[in-house]
Amino acid sequence: MKLTAAQIAEFNEQGYLFLPSVFSQAEIDVLRAEVPGIYATERPEVVREKGSNAPRSAFYVQTWNKVFAAVARHPRLVEPGIQLLGSDKLYMHQFKINAKAAFDGAVWQWHQDYGTWQADDDMPEAKAMNIALLLAEANEFNGPLMFIPKSHRLGKLEAGHDTTTTSYPLWTIDNATITRLVEQGGIVAPKGPAGSMLLFHGNLVHASGSNLTPWSRWILYLSLNRCDNAIRRFKRPNWIANRDFTPIEMLPDDCLMRLAAERPAAAE
Amino acid sequence: MKLTAAQIAEFNEQGYLFLPSVFSQAEIDVLRAEVPGIYATERPEVVREKGSNAPRSAFYVQTWNKVFAAVARHPRLVEPGIQLLGSDKLYMHQFKINAKAAFDGAVWQWHQDYGTWQADDDMPEAKAMNIALLLAEANEFNGPLMFIPKSHRLGKLEAGHDTTTTSYPLWTIDNATITRLVEQGGIVAPKGPAGSMLLFHGNLVHASGSNLTPWSRWILYLSLNRCDNAIRRFKRPNWIANRDFTPIEMLPDDCLMRLAAERPAAAE
Repeated sequence: MKLTAAQIAEFNEQGYLFLPSVFSQAEIDVLRAEVPGIYATERPEVVREKGSNAPRSAFYVQTWNKVFAAVARHPRLVEPGIQLLGSDKLYMHQFKINAKAAFDGAVWQWHQDYGTWQADDDMPEAKAMNIALLLAEANEFNGPLMFIPKSHRLGKLEAGHDTTTTSYPLWTIDNATITRLVEQGGIVAPKGPAGSMLLFHGNLVHASGSNLTPWSRWILYLSLNRCDNAIRRFKRPNWIANRDFTPIEMLPDDCLMRLAAERPAAAE
Repeated sequence: MKLTAAQIAEFNEQGYLFLPSVFSQAEIDVLRAEVPGIYATERPEVVREKGSNAPRSAFYVQTWNKVFAAVARHPRLVEPGIQLLGSDKLYMHQFKINAKAAFDGAVWQWHQDYGTWQADDDMPEAKAMNIALLLAEANEFNGPLMFIPKSHRLGKLEAGHDTTTTSYPLWTIDNATITRLVEQGGIVAPKGPAGSMLLFHGNLVHASGSNLTPWSRWILYLSLNRCDNAIRRFKRPNWIANRDFTPIEMLPDDCLMRLAAERPAAAE
């Protein structure tokens, strides 16, 4: 899958791209079948919401689940990163499945991912980005991602370390700055079916609300970084900020369906 | 303002009615000018969000603010209640301005208001309802009210007393029940400009999400009850569950603009 010149221009202008229904329902089913088991696993990489046992994020899943190991190398996810970051040598800085669980999914405060990547991991430049794959429908009710368009153009903004609001510490942006950015760019919340993709710049300011609905809003994130932009501080665990800078080698486009065919029992 | 037969039928069918732009911007401005002062007041009737000083609700404001004393008797708000509740003898069971404050507005869990009115206040029947007036735009981002259409037809549902999730104790409905109701009725979140009205049945199941935006979503609630359905237990403070069952006498339709003309300084 190659992005068009118009799509690349839109990404550079707005800071994000929404691509509806890139993966088939059959492919999504292969991934979704793994998720309950992943979230049920008791290990440090599965972070729970504050004050409940509901999953918030499952990290580093490409290293402990075969199906997610495959999707971590999927060309429909990695190829756009190569185009947008301008290098065919990318590694996986972070890989996670965020749950935004039905009834219990809590907020993610306004932040830039590169804010955290720089402050915590000493990543040299904002030459890293997120490629997200919706594993469940995102609708107006279940806490969809909210972006402030064009906010990526301001570079890294000042941020404070919020370690109390949620179970996951985050470098977040103050209210006065958000007010100013929203006056300029507004807010958008792309919505669509499972299988849709969201690509966004490491400096794009984003957040998401609570989820009070019966609909979990599972989303897979590949945070791709250029190998020549590897992090230089190893403060966070390697399952949050990966220290293996080996370039990703892509698998064939039909890798998920092949895997499903090889492992019929897993799809039951 | 009289509701049409079609509107009354829709209310009975769906459990709610949304009426866009019933009050003019000039009228809303008269009300909005009072709100910051009301929320800045330190008194028990102004409830704060858990863990912050942000306002959550200001109760009983009709007794301590002249402008809100007038709107509490406004015919565009009271007359639909008279029609829908089938009695011209209504009193104000509860009167509040909910803030859903910018950045800090927290959730209201799924509940029926009559659940609380019965359990806490011993209100005999669900012959009470909410008339809400948007004092600010409600949009998809700032935590709009969410309704489960038709859920009012099931009568009062079982509820548990949640005293921990937010700063305001509420009789809330369990996740399994909400899942079943949403499968049947879906979720709607009416959105519109300040000046719009929302009318909903005392048994309609509703909730609202967090507000992470710079846009406070102020909303005024008149909870009207039939005088022949007055509460019989005085467990909650009278500013939450009013003990004065005097029927509301309506003011003229232009009462807000008259008040503004009489008190030019207040509008400055």
